[in-house]
This record gives sequence, C-alpha cells and structure tokens, in this order.
Amino acid sequence: MAEPKRIVILGSTGSIGVQTLDVVRSHGERLNVVGLAAGSNAELVAQQAREFGVETVALADEQAAAGLADGPWRMLAGADGVCDLVDVAEPDLVVGAISGSAGLRSLMRALQAGVDCALANKEPLVVAGGIVTEAARKSGAQLLPVDSELSAIFQCMRGEQSAEVEKIMLTASGGPFSKLSMAELQEVTAEQALAHPTWRMGRKVTIDSATLANKGFEVFETMWLFGVQARQIEVVVHHQSIVHSLVEFQDSSVIAQLGLPDMRVPIQLALLYPDRAQNDLPRLSLAQAGSLTFAEPDTERFPCLRLALETARAGETYPAVLNGADEVAVYEFLAGRIGFMQIPALIEQALGEHESMHGASMADVVEADRWAREFVAARVAEA
Amino acid sequence: MAEPKRIVILGSTGSIGVQTLDVVRSHGERLNVVGLAAGSNAELVAQQAREFGVETVALADEQAAAGLADGPWRMLAGADGVCDLVDVAEPDLVVGAISGSAGLRSLMRALQAGVDCALANKEPLVVAGGIVTEAARKSGAQLLPVDSELSAIFQCMRGEQSAEVEKIMLTASGGPFSKLSMAELQEVTAEQALAHPTWRMGRKVTIDSATLANKGFEVFETMWLFGVQARQIEVVVHHQSIVHSLVEFQDSSVIAQLGLPDMRVPIQLALLYPDRAQNDLPRLSLAQAGSLTFAEPDTERFPCLRLALETARAGETYPAVLNGADEVAVYEFLAGRIGFMQIPALIEQALGEHESMHGASMADVVEADRWAREFVAARVAEA
Repeated sequence: MAEPKRIVILGSTGSIGVQTLDVVRSHGERLNVVGLAAGSNAELVAQQAREFGVETVALADEQAAAGLADGPWRMLAGADGVCDLVDVAEPDLVVGAISGSAGLRSLMRALQAGVDCALANKEPLVVAGGIVTEAARKSGAQLLPVDSELSAIFQCMRGEQSAEVEKIMLTASGGPFSKLSMAELQEVTAEQALAHPTWRMGRKVTIDSATLANKGFEVFETMWLFGVQARQIEVVVHHQSIVHSLVEFQDSSVIAQLGLPDMRVPIQLALLYPDRAQNDLPRLSLAQAGSLTFAEPDTERFPCLRLALETARAGETYPAVLNGADEVAVYEFLAGRIGFMQIPALIEQALGEHESMHGASMADVVEADRWAREFVAARVAEA
Repeated sequence: MAEPKRIVILGSTGSIGVQTLDVVRSHGERLNVVGLAAGSNAELVAQQAREFGVETVALADEQAAAGLADGPWRMLAGADGVCDLVDVAEPDLVVGAISGSAGLRSLMRALQAGVDCALANKEPLVVAGGIVTEAARKSGAQLLPVDSELSAIFQCMRGEQSAEVEKIMLTASGGPFSKLSMAELQEVTAEQALAHPTWRMGRKVTIDSATLANKGFEVFETMWLFGVQARQIEVVVHHQSIVHSLVEFQDSSVIAQLGLPDMRVPIQLALLYPDRAQNDLPRLSLAQAGSLTFAEPDTERFPCLRLALETARAGETYPAVLNGADEVAVYEFLAGRIGFMQIPALIEQALGEHESMHGASMADVVEADRWAREFVAARVAEA
C-alpha cells in the first residue's frame, strides 16, 4: 500500500468541501487531509480539522482566523493565508472548491507549484481559462474536473485521442423552471430557485443552474480542459440527470458517462485518480429509470446559455465580464432586489457595453471583472 | 503513412462481409484486402475479388470453387482451403464472419498463428470460448469484437481496468415481437421474423434476435472477451437500439457507447483499431431521438435468454449443446417445420437430456455439438 495522498481542500465548509470530506471518510487509508481553507465558518472548519487531524488551517476572514489561533494546528489568515496554505501544507492534490473568482489565486499558486488540482469551482476556467491551463501545462500539474458533467467528459475521454473528438454534448437538467413560461419566469423568487431538485449544492450555483448560466460556464470549462472549440460543444436538456455528458468521436461513435446524481462519484474519482475505488453508493438501474429524455435547450427563455455560448466564441475579456456580471446579478437576485429575468438582462447589457481589452492577461481579466461588477451594481442601484 | 493493413475476410458474401467491404471502400488507403473466403456464392466473391484486386480466394463449396479456378487469383477449395487461406494470404487481420460453428476452425488457425481477429460470428465464443481466448492469449493475437454490443463494451473499457468492472449491461432491442403475447408468439412465421426492424443482418441471426437467443450468445462473448462472470452480466431491453451497451464500474460510475444502429461503425473500429477514423456516417442527435427507454427482459415469453444465462453459469459442454440445438431448431423453423416457441422448447429439452462431459476440450465440444444437432433433428422428425 502506497503512502496516503496528502490533500488540501480550499473551501472545505462549502457543499463540495463537505462532500469531499465524506469521500475521505470512506477512503481514509488512501487519503490524508493536511490542509483546510474556508471563508469565515470557524466553527465548522475547526470541527473538520479535529476530526481529520489536519496540520494547517486557513481562514480568509482574519477575525474568524484569530478565534482559532490556539487550536492543535498551524493557523493562516486572510486571502494571502489561503494561498500560502498550498505551499505550507505540501499537498499531492489540492481540491479547489472556493466559489467565485476568489478561488483563482489559490488555484494558480497550486498549479504553478506543479501540484495536481481537483477543480470544482468553474470561475477560474471561465474568466482565465487560458492562463490556468497554461500554468498547468508548464508545471506538469494535472487538472482533474470535479463537476459531474466535466468529470463525465473526462471519463469518456479515458483511453481516447483528443484529436479524434468531433463534438462534446453537455447535458443540462434544464433547472427547476424548465417548464415555466416567460411571464412565469419573471415572477420567480429566490426561495423558489433555491429549492433545486437534483443536486446538493451552494446558493450561487443553484441560481446559476436555474438560469442555465451554470451550463454556460461548463462550456468554458469544456473548451479549456479538453482543448475543443466552442462550436464543437452542444448543450442538450436531459431532465433525469442520469447521463452526465457525452463525447462524439469522428467515427460517429458516442461515449457517455451515466450514474445516479451524486457528487461523491466525481469527487472520489478526482481524489483517487486513476483508480475507481469500490464504494457502496447507490447503483443506477436503467430498468427502474425507465426512460431518459433529451431535448434542445430553449435559449429564449434561458438567455444566459445563449450569452455564454456567444461569449465563448468571442473570447478576450468578455468571459470575465460574463462571470463578474453574473456574480453580482445573482447576488442582487438573492437579496430580492431584482427579478429572475433581470439576471440575463443585466449580463447582456454588461457584455454590450464592455470594451474588450483584446487580450486576456491576468491584469486584463481582473480589470474586466471589476468593471462588470461595478457596471451591474450601478445599474441595479439606478433602478 | 504506414503500409495498408492486410486483411482477410472469412465470410465475405454474408451481411457482415459485405459491410466490411463497404468500410474498406471508404478507407482504401489504409486497408488492403488480400484474401476472401465464402461458402458457395462464386459470383459475388469473384466480383468482390475483382473490385479489390484480391490475391487469394477460397470457397468452402469445392464445385463452386472449381468454377473460379481461372481467375486472376490463387484459388483454394473446401473447408481446408478456407483454413489455409489464413496462412497463404499472410494477413495482419482476419475478419471472422462465417456464420455458425463452421467459423471456429479458420478462426483458431488465425489465432494460433498470432494474427489479430475481428470477430463477428458469435458461435466460436459460445461453444469454445475458453479454447479460443486461450489460443489468443498464448500467441498474443488480439480479439476485436465486431458485434455492436460487444464493440460497445470494448469501447467502454478503453483506458479502464478490467479488475474495476462491477457489471456489464447488454442492451437488447427486444426483437420484433417484444410486444406479442405468448399465444401470438406461437403463431409467428419465419417471414414475419425475417422482417427485423433495426439491424441489417443474415437470416440465422435475425431469428436468433427475435427469440433473444442472440442476446444470450452475447452473454458468452462478454464473459470470454472481458473476463467477467455470468452473474456480472445483465440484459436490459432498449427498443431504440441507440445505447449499444454499458459497463458499470465499482465506483458506481457507468460508461456507455451510443450511436445510430450501423454495423459499419464497429466494423471500422475493428479494422482500423486503435484509430477512430473520420467517416461520413449519419450522426446521432439525442434531441431528435427524444427518449431512450429501458426495461427488464421477459424471460417467460423469451426463454432462450433464460436458457443462455443458465447455460453460461453451467459451463462445460452445455454451451455447445445450446448452440448446436439452436442452429438446428432455427433451421427447422425457417423451413416451416416447427413453430416459433418450439425453438426454445427444443433447446431446453436438449439441455435437459444432455449428459455433460465435465470438460470443454475441442473434442468434447465437437461431440456435444453433434449430439445436440442429432437430438433436435430427431425430435422434429418424430413429431
């Protein structure tokens, strides 16, 4: 038996972080959690650190960090502390699960150091896909997707040649509102949107799933992780969330990955890659599922998907604007200050007003992101 | 560009043989047909040999062979001639598409010589799976499945570990009579059975598809090609014939292969393996397919499937009896001498009366096969 893999979880108190620790509980002999980072939830991170005997803990919130200073761990504080954790803990694998573009810096630190990363948050690849994948390429670090759709594609590609891929089909549950009319969509509240039926996940991702913005973000992830063009990516609505995505090859053959919706499956694969370790998670019964349905997405009622596809084709600093505008718009929607259909409307305005920097350096990206956030916040404040 | 692959097609005038040549037409720069073998269709094999400039031709029917003696090719005759073709033509790959257990000898000759084989006929693996796979293992020859379901599993296994397979799900179209009652099944005629809706294939295979015996044979192929136990194999009815089969791994993840039903896809992969060469075959549109359905098979109305699963568990000479009894029963059904439901009834009687030889040497297999054929023929003659 090899030494347990040393892992650091960035975002351990969020939905993905908590499920990652679930997986570690089932495979404790092969995984050793050596570092945890979170935002401000000191109580939960301390409990996690105690259970797993973690050596180093980081909290982005400095005040919260101060409260944990005398635990049986080395304590790091602030956004810099979260980044330093990656160096200090000397991990074999970093799980990047910090929601929003805040996860970008710590992820970059890990990749530049040549540490493999299991990537759960989409934003780094949306706003800075070229920079992130180039950093991984340079250092030889491997990027392992944790998202169920991206993990599905990754699994479909095992043993295959990238050059033989013709098309990637991303499946979309369609979100909880797939059957609502445009008029009904305008009346949707944050409460309704947060009652998502299929996947257990955070508030921001839940809203993004309802608008299909999340599916749009996966288009960027797919482009960058698998080296395909935006025009090679198709989104297909599949309500049952059993087929997690598909890859079509140039011989017309299609490979798909299926399973009951459970994030622990892709998390486990990313943690223990390349092994598929035995587990006792529920098994798929196709006869019990009965019927799997597929349909084209309606980009009129769900414009976020159209905007993402257009942005993926445009490139430059537009993706950073898409992401920044979406984050603020979703925040405003959750706060009850704008309606559901204003999310895509505000993103579209931001994309329309944005003057591209015709590049995508880290400075360009940061500036475009800042501009988009201010733009949307200002529009909401004006209304 | 490498030298074209030298291929020999055993059974070139049958459905698989003809489609194999279709594939060669599309990839002529990579494939060179150096030998063709058929039964008695001298006219078609001569036409094929002329079109592809084939060096050596073999016909099992010696009289038919005599008629082709003065063509621009070396001519071989008789069952021995078909076997000799494999040596004489010096192929890189043999396509084994001779229907029935007659294909076994020529296949064994190729495998023993270390020549890779694309296997389209099921009987060799049903009656003598242990012998065939052992011959391949010893010589290092690769066995490449051509059957759409078996090719699907083969594709799902690319880049995966056999030891991590938990279960293999073979899909079954259910055949043309999946909705008929027991009483209606008893009245089915050969003509009705030959009007199979989905796959283009020979008469014997078409009847075996209607009784689900064919799916039962695939259970044996699956066991031997992928080294799994009969209990790890599940058959699931899938009328659309789009999901060609699935593999479940021990982490609960399922990989599937999909596509429009077209034998040229698995044939092409077997011929050009490991490459997935570009082609212009029709592409699958999931949105257009709309719905994929799955159900458990009804082994009461289709007892051939149950008999095959039981036989797969029993092993020894029972598989040879299953296959031999089925071949004669199907022949009698096609000749209009027995009813559709007598096919499984006769197979079940043969299996019940058979005294296993507790081994499965080639001599045992040949003897059990002979016994089963005589048994069924005698029962039909008596009635």
